[in-house]
Amino acid sequence: IHHTCQWGTGERWGEHVGPAPTETGMSRLALSDADKSARDWFVSTTEALGCKVTIDAMGNIFAVRPGLRNDKPPTFVGSHLDTQPTGGRYDGILGVTAGIEMLKVLADNWVETEYPVGVVNWTNEEGARFPKSMVSSGVWAGDIPVEDAHSLREVHPGTATMASELKRIGYLGETPASYEATPMAAHFELHIEQGPLLEMANKKIGVVTGVQAYKWFTVNVKGRDTHTGTTDLKSRADALLTASKMILHSHRLATANTALASTGILNLKPGSTNTVPGQVSFSLDIRAPKDSTVATMTELVLRDFPRIAAGEDVDGSNLGCTSGLPLSVEIVEDFNSPATLFHSDCITSVHQSAHHILGPNSHNLIMDMTSGAGHDSVYASKRCPTSMIFVPCREGVSHNPREFCKEEDCALGAQVLLQSVVRFDRM
Amino acid sequence: IHHTCQWGTGERWGEHVGPAPTETGMSRLALSDADKSARDWFVSTTEALGCKVTIDAMGNIFAVRPGLRNDKPPTFVGSHLDTQPTGGRYDGILGVTAGIEMLKVLADNWVETEYPVGVVNWTNEEGARFPKSMVSSGVWAGDIPVEDAHSLREVHPGTATMASELKRIGYLGETPASYEATPMAAHFELHIEQGPLLEMANKKIGVVTGVQAYKWFTVNVKGRDTHTGTTDLKSRADALLTASKMILHSHRLATANTALASTGILNLKPGSTNTVPGQVSFSLDIRAPKDSTVATMTELVLRDFPRIAAGEDVDGSNLGCTSGLPLSVEIVEDFNSPATLFHSDCITSVHQSAHHILGPNSHNLIMDMTSGAGHDSVYASKRCPTSMIFVPCREGVSHNPREFCKEEDCALGAQVLLQSVVRFDRM
Ligand SMILES: NC(=O)NCCC(=O)O
Ligand SMILES: NC(=O)NCCC(=O)O
Repeated sequence: IHHTCQWGTGERWGEHVGPAPTETGMSRLALSDADKSARDWFVSTTEALGCKVTIDAMGNIFAVRPGLRNDKPPTFVGSHLDTQPTGGRYDGILGVTAGIEMLKVLADNWVETEYPVGVVNWTNEEGARFPKSMVSSGVWAGDIPVEDAHSLREVHPGTATMASELKRIGYLGETPASYEATPMAAHFELHIEQGPLLEMANKKIGVVTGVQAYKWFTVNVKGRDTHTGTTDLKSRADALLTASKMILHSHRLATANTALASTGILNLKPGSTNTVPGQVSFSLDIRAPKDSTVATMTELVLRDFPRIAAGEDVDGSNLGCTSGLPLSVEIVEDFNSPATLFHSDCITSVHQSAHHILGPNSHNLIMDMTSGAGHDSVYASKRCPTSMIFVPCREGVSHNPREFCKEEDCALGAQVLLQSVVRFDRM
Repeated sequence: IHHTCQWGTGERWGEHVGPAPTETGMSRLALSDADKSARDWFVSTTEALGCKVTIDAMGNIFAVRPGLRNDKPPTFVGSHLDTQPTGGRYDGILGVTAGIEMLKVLADNWVETEYPVGVVNWTNEEGARFPKSMVSSGVWAGDIPVEDAHSLREVHPGTATMASELKRIGYLGETPASYEATPMAAHFELHIEQGPLLEMANKKIGVVTGVQAYKWFTVNVKGRDTHTGTTDLKSRADALLTASKMILHSHRLATANTALASTGILNLKPGSTNTVPGQVSFSLDIRAPKDSTVATMTELVLRDFPRIAAGEDVDGSNLGCTSGLPLSVEIVEDFNSPATLFHSDCITSVHQSAHHILGPNSHNLIMDMTSGAGHDSVYASKRCPTSMIFVPCREGVSHNPREFCKEEDCALGAQVLLQSVVRFDRM
């Protein structure tokens, strides 16, 4: 893990006086120069371990180690090497490096698997640079058209596309990005939980049975640029004031519906202290365990945001302020990931492996759970048996430089991953 | 006006099929290349009209036409050639070009004034690029230390300073920026009203007797980056949700206190759809006719924002949402412009000139008024008799590409300006 974190080293979080080189986060946006270095390392390392490496049209990198028989597709371990702009050292990276550790253990011990096994590094899982998470496993699964993915534009500064960046760093492969060109027998993924449940319950391994539903929207609010000193509150069409009301309202709706609502990006125009902003666009991320809850939240947002834009006092959202002139709002759905259930064969492999590794006290250390975050396993599960293994991370914090997973927990997760693959391969 | 708008032409607003070259706004940020071109034009034009040109350490450009006697300081006309990022063709530009028109009329008619007269182009009046409005007249007046002004950093992308940009475009003059090095007998400024009052009242000339008070703040909210999918609402320290509450609350306070509150800039970190923002900073512009109202607003903001950051439900500001973990807030006062009263001698000159020019019906066409916007006349008035002349602009819209002032109204304003200067010079 830490060796690969030399590419895209992020903000320091540790308070140690010494150099403490591992106490930094990561900033390795998908298809950046740092990502290219990590990819080059992935390719040379897996080739040195006897793998055949294939790169597809989304830059997904598949490293395959032959089995005794090769007339069926490999059992894969997969995750991602890209990170958030101010992310941690474990999200995604643990899953890929644990896959490489698996390849090393098999090689060091001259293990021959029944069928081939592989490790895949999926491109832009985070959706942080190109704003669609898990987009390249989505293309592989046939859910997202490759043209849509290729034309995705980066969030900042907004000029490069996925296709132009894939080409630039030399990872626009010739193999079509599809489950037909690169079939999988199964997909296993080890990941930090990114939430607090395992730590709070004092568990070591989370057996992930599914992933909650989520949708991403872009909300564009259009008002009118005017002077802050000469325009009374009634004569304004303040796009930022209106966006603020919408953000608060989305949280109120989430609270009422036991869902999550989050805004992580907000851009405004023109951006001057003494001009009332005429344009704001912001991201809205809505999640809930059930598809029906996300559907209800979506309906409520689509119903209420235009009313708020028009100046209506939706459930007191105006907080008693003078309402100005009416504004308009446009709401675009960018991404939809319905609730996912993983495959019982894979879940069973993980269960058996975890119990075997954790020993006599294992029933106290293992927990079934649903993932709050999306993962490439969501799309993999549409085309092959899939499941995931979670390990605890400190205080449940992720997408933050302080993200931390103990060495011992990383190792336990990697052992469960290896055994799950071997068990599935035998099965 | 329109000739000078070739430098920094902004967004089109007209719906004409033809080219309609004047139906665009302006985007001429202070000390940009476009501003340099407009400055070069100002220097060569005023020199050709027989003026001596001086540039001071803030890049203020003073063009002085000799009088019959030159043992007293010149009577100045002043305004600014910089604009908002998406501004109009009249804000500031009208005042400077009307000053040059005055020089032309005096030259064409061989008029000799008693004492010298001058035109000044003040630097970065807008405060749009370097976030302190009227900063260079502020230095001239001795109110803002030149070092503070020189080290002001641009808002976007945030690397250049006023000093580095003054040097880059060749307008870092050798004359100290001060009322002692460049004294003025008086300062007159013609400006579009930027508000709707003249148009609504069917008046032609506003005699500006003063300017309302305002303060600018930067509000820095600090929470914690976390994952949007795995962090429940209670475990978040969402800096954008908290900033949204503060923006709404500032409007509520403004409504209750008959003041204005506005946020024109908002930046957040890290800026990713699936990361709850840990840092937000935003501008807050507070205005009111009376200093005491601005003081009250300031007190209330300083009292309530930390409470909102801590999660307190200040007057229902949480809108019934789950409050997360406590955040912190830091509020920095960037700029303070107390309420200003102009000088009765200058006000009288404007009154008499307006009545003279508008003729028999003039009492129906002239209105005394207070400016909602700040102007360089605010700082000029601290060091010499000063007043302003307003002309109506369409629907009161300013800081917007659609900003518009009729030719006839520009001309009336320019005539009143010329006569005011000549009257003051005689007086
Ligand atoms: N694991 C992870 O952080 N994935 C990003 C996709 C999401 O937003 O849940
Ligand atoms: N006139 C004008 O728009 N000046 C900018 C300073 C202010 O914010 O009022």
